[in-house]
Amino acid sequence: MVEIRSALAENACAVNEVLEGLLPLSDDPEARLIEAMRYAVLSDGKRIRPFLVTASASLFDVTPSYALRVAAAVELVHCYSLVHDDLPAMDDDELRRGLPTVHVKFDEATAVLAGDALLTRAFEVLAEPATHSDPRVRSDLVVELARAAGADGMVGGQMLDLLAEHHRLSEHEVTRLQRLKTGALIGFACTSGAILGKSSEAARSALHAYAHDLGLAFQIVDDLLDVEGDPAELGKNIRKDEAAGKATFVTLLGRERARHQSAMLAEQAVRHLDMFAEAAEPLRALARFVVDRRN
Amino acid sequence: MVEIRSALAENACAVNEVLEGLLPLSDDPEARLIEAMRYAVLSDGKRIRPFLVTASASLFDVTPSYALRVAAAVELVHCYSLVHDDLPAMDDDELRRGLPTVHVKFDEATAVLAGDALLTRAFEVLAEPATHSDPRVRSDLVVELARAAGADGMVGGQMLDLLAEHHRLSEHEVTRLQRLKTGALIGFACTSGAILGKSSEAARSALHAYAHDLGLAFQIVDDLLDVEGDPAELGKNIRKDEAAGKATFVTLLGRERARHQSAMLAEQAVRHLDMFAEAAEPLRALARFVVDRRN
Repeated sequence: MVEIRSALAENACAVNEVLEGLLPLSDDPEARLIEAMRYAVLSDGKRIRPFLVTASASLFDVTPSYALRVAAAVELVHCYSLVHDDLPAMDDDELRRGLPTVHVKFDEATAVLAGDALLTRAFEVLAEPATHSDPRVRSDLVVELARAAGADGMVGGQMLDLLAEHHRLSEHEVTRLQRLKTGALIGFACTSGAILGKSSEAARSALHAYAHDLGLAFQIVDDLLDVEGDPAELGKNIRKDEAAGKATFVTLLGRERARHQSAMLAEQAVRHLDMFAEAAEPLRALARFVVDRRN
Repeated sequence: MVEIRSALAENACAVNEVLEGLLPLSDDPEARLIEAMRYAVLSDGKRIRPFLVTASASLFDVTPSYALRVAAAVELVHCYSLVHDDLPAMDDDELRRGLPTVHVKFDEATAVLAGDALLTRAFEVLAEPATHSDPRVRSDLVVELARAAGADGMVGGQMLDLLAEHHRLSEHEVTRLQRLKTGALIGFACTSGAILGKSSEAARSALHAYAHDLGLAFQIVDDLLDVEGDPAELGKNIRKDEAAGKATFVTLLGRERARHQSAMLAEQAVRHLDMFAEAAEPLRALARFVVDRRN
């Protein structure tokens, strides 16, 4: 059995080193921007998305430094989305991973710009030769990340989330919202290994199916933690969706069914990995970890 | 002599058609996001940056549809930067091209997301096979646009601009600010044709030098129009820099020297184009247009 906690920690350490190198400190007068970018990114997060990248890449004997750069790019996009999501005009959150959010620590304008620059850096990283010797692979990564992160993916999901404040969503609508808002980037993380490894279409589809179920399980647990979790352990304020009157998987299904469904989805996710045999053990362990986590 | 006004109009028409196709209307519940993106982009702007792309690409016999896609990507980035720049936390502008800005017409959260999605779409467009048959060219375009638009380019310049509210800049500092804030993207626009056309290093350097002088001339004229222009013709509020006590080329040099310097820079820009002979006539006409424009 894979010791998932230590595997996550080890991977987080390697990814953090890459991220640190991608955001070098500067003496320029605009260095405040870099400071805000580093503040947003260099934390002790679990780095689940980067883990999905490196674990999926390891199925195809991808050069580890390639996988780590893609993992870092995914984390840059994830962190940018948190910075913008936390803005007063959006979710208006003051706490993230136990620390003041970027617009609280710096200011709102700097938070907008830091998010913009993180997103831009992610695409730069993917397209640079150090990410893969084959430029076709690099272009494909850019296209797929953009699709996952843009109007038809993550940003579209955030828009739906905003609109949900004025319109109580059905289970079908919440599922679609989460597929876009969190599922799309998780989907890219899981399939990027297949792109890097120039895998068969079948392998890529299997990873896509795994990501699909994993992403939903992940979100259901997030909703559960938002009502059951310990704010100190989570490092953020909780019960915000409830306060805003937003439909979540918990309000729609109730806690017990939500808990059951997340476990079922995680097992379903694992079954998509049969073709990879032993090699997919880290991805299986991750799926189980995601539904058992407490933060 | 090139009739620059009709050449600009013709090119704007072709670019607008591509932009329209890149932002299709949708029936999805999050369609408000697409509406805001289209509102930000599909206006009757002069499309100077797209013109620089197609005019520079025409020096190297680039497939016109390739150049138009890159031109559209540059405009997507330019428009995203305006949307975020206009936000209340940033420049707090309510009028742009004679119309309410995106956050006024929609709302602040939608403006943040529309900007994010426009930036993301730009990279997607560059990396898609329709932009060039050679994936190395596509990757290079992504890297170069990211460098021009990110923390070491446009966003870095915006950060400097914010900091200028607290610190009166010198001429040297204002020049550096503008090189980043407006010059970097103009630089990408002018050199993207050379990337598309796999030009010689010398040709690319010449275009880079042209862009360098043109960008500065452009900005000086912008500063002049901000004190001399007609708000109705400009379609935006003027004298904002003056009100904010910001140093501009006009406050630093005075109107007369600023006017003279912009003309001198435009002529200097033109001289970098000698190696292209007749083919660069549109770029020469554009440089003269930039310093003579009234809006």
